[in-house]
Amino acid sequence: MNNILIIGCGLLGSSLLRRIHKKKIAKKIFIYEKSKSNILRIKKLKLPGIILNKLEKGVVNSDLIIFCTPMSEYKNLILKINNFISSKTLITDIGSSKIESSKIIKKFLKKNIHWIQSHPIAGSEVSGPQHGKENMFENKWCILTKEKKTKKAYLNILDNFWKKIGSKVVVMTAEKHDKIFSITSHLPHLIAYNLVKSAQDFENKQNYDLIKFSAGGLRDFSRIAASNEIMWRDIFFNNRNNISKAIDLFIKNLTSFKKDINLKNNKSILKKLIQTKKVRSKIILLKQDTNKPDFGRS
Amino acid sequence: MNNILIIGCGLLGSSLLRRIHKKKIAKKIFIYEKSKSNILRIKKLKLPGIILNKLEKGVVNSDLIIFCTPMSEYKNLILKINNFISSKTLITDIGSSKIESSKIIKKFLKKNIHWIQSHPIAGSEVSGPQHGKENMFENKWCILTKEKKTKKAYLNILDNFWKKIGSKVVVMTAEKHDKIFSITSHLPHLIAYNLVKSAQDFENKQNYDLIKFSAGGLRDFSRIAASNEIMWRDIFFNNRNNISKAIDLFIKNLTSFKKDINLKNNKSILKKLIQTKKVRSKIILLKQDTNKPDFGRS
Repeated sequence: MNNILIIGCGLLGSSLLRRIHKKKIAKKIFIYEKSKSNILRIKKLKLPGIILNKLEKGVVNSDLIIFCTPMSEYKNLILKINNFISSKTLITDIGSSKIESSKIIKKFLKKNIHWIQSHPIAGSEVSGPQHGKENMFENKWCILTKEKKTKKAYLNILDNFWKKIGSKVVVMTAEKHDKIFSITSHLPHLIAYNLVKSAQDFENKQNYDLIKFSAGGLRDFSRIAASNEIMWRDIFFNNRNNISKAIDLFIKNLTSFKKDINLKNNKSILKKLIQTKKVRSKIILLKQDTNKPDFGRS
Repeated sequence: MNNILIIGCGLLGSSLLRRIHKKKIAKKIFIYEKSKSNILRIKKLKLPGIILNKLEKGVVNSDLIIFCTPMSEYKNLILKINNFISSKTLITDIGSSKIESSKIIKKFLKKNIHWIQSHPIAGSEVSGPQHGKENMFENKWCILTKEKKTKKAYLNILDNFWKKIGSKVVVMTAEKHDKIFSITSHLPHLIAYNLVKSAQDFENKQNYDLIKFSAGGLRDFSRIAASNEIMWRDIFFNNRNNISKAIDLFIKNLTSFKKDINLKNNKSILKKLIQTKKVRSKIILLKQDTNKPDFGRS
């Protein structure tokens, strides 16, 4: 690969930048970032890459363009790059939901331009290039979504790119992707936000100072609930159909659990509590989390 | 203090044991543990203390008795110790809910015996004496519950004990305790169990292998959902009134959030997402969690 353009150089964009530079994956790395404070941080950190004022130079000269912005910015950026983009350039993105953005891409991107979507399962509750890390994607899954018309040659290029980044690649449809992540990622975030909100509501109503007693469980959820609001608004809006179904399934389970505790249904509760325990072991076995108790925090 | 009897020597009991021994808080430490495998582990680990076959010796010779068993075992243990206990001995426990256990104590404990309940906000998803740590309670809150008839002198003794253990002590009523922890601890655990169950239900229904993609959020909840089932069944049953109200509040928020995303209510969603973010900063400021991104896992 010759040159790569990273559009949006926050937590994940800057992590890609660091990795591409370190592993010499591209000759030149162009950066397009609209936030002035992020640009200042990139300069202060002396990150590699060429910061562009205008998109044109990066679009014209790159073999791969990676959208690392919130998904709500795709449309305007697509309209801009349409003026310069050539069919030799491959585009990808790292958005966390896929069906809605594929509609935007189909509707607004110039014809005969190849865009294959990516979703690296990596990130954190903090934002900005100052928190990026070269090993952010190391041994993490990266989903590539495939449609009927996806060209094998381009899929191979992207697969190869993510493997150099350090990821384990898996290919699936946007539909399957959005269903899976509505459960494993979007619902957990939504629940975390709402649990923290419920604690705030309760604190305001009771006038109790309860956040200081958050070590008994709430603090875990507060981490996720501190995630970037623009990114998460976009995900919740874009994948709202699957997320709504996930909420319904969850509320059904919650209501049944409430009934169990009110009836003191020992057998049912124990069965549920023992069953869910197995998932933790599986997650650790699959190396998707640390095996240290309490995340090794204490 | 001369001697202390620890009843139930699992994660927290054995952590107290280690700390009491290290800080020389008692002359003798008696251990009463009904699980044979735990006794074997205690011996193998060469933990300090005198393991008793019968309760009598420990009850008669101790100034302080600490119940570290699941709450459902209190009643039978109380009926046993009633035969030997003297009014000079102070009893406490470390149970995570207080109203129901105070009823059990009032109903079954011999008259004129002092029992002041404690709740150290410490623990982990793992169980057993092999996971105990001497510094488990260091700088952690410990709630003591106070009733009208609680004797100041005994409260001081217990306050002093927990301070030696390393905890920060706060005194409140059982009612206030059970309300606060229904939100900061019991609801989060219940939600974690039900989220993991929802993921399992979804996986079974869709026949998708989704646990391997749990790094996007689900894995955090799976840790809490791996907590000891007997301990948590007891908490859910004992504090069911407050927990039911907490579930209702949470479902109300969840339903409103679902409406917001389906209507793409930008203003409302952003307000909620920004508001909840503040809680994380407060939790870190209060030193109730690590300030490292992603709990410092990666």
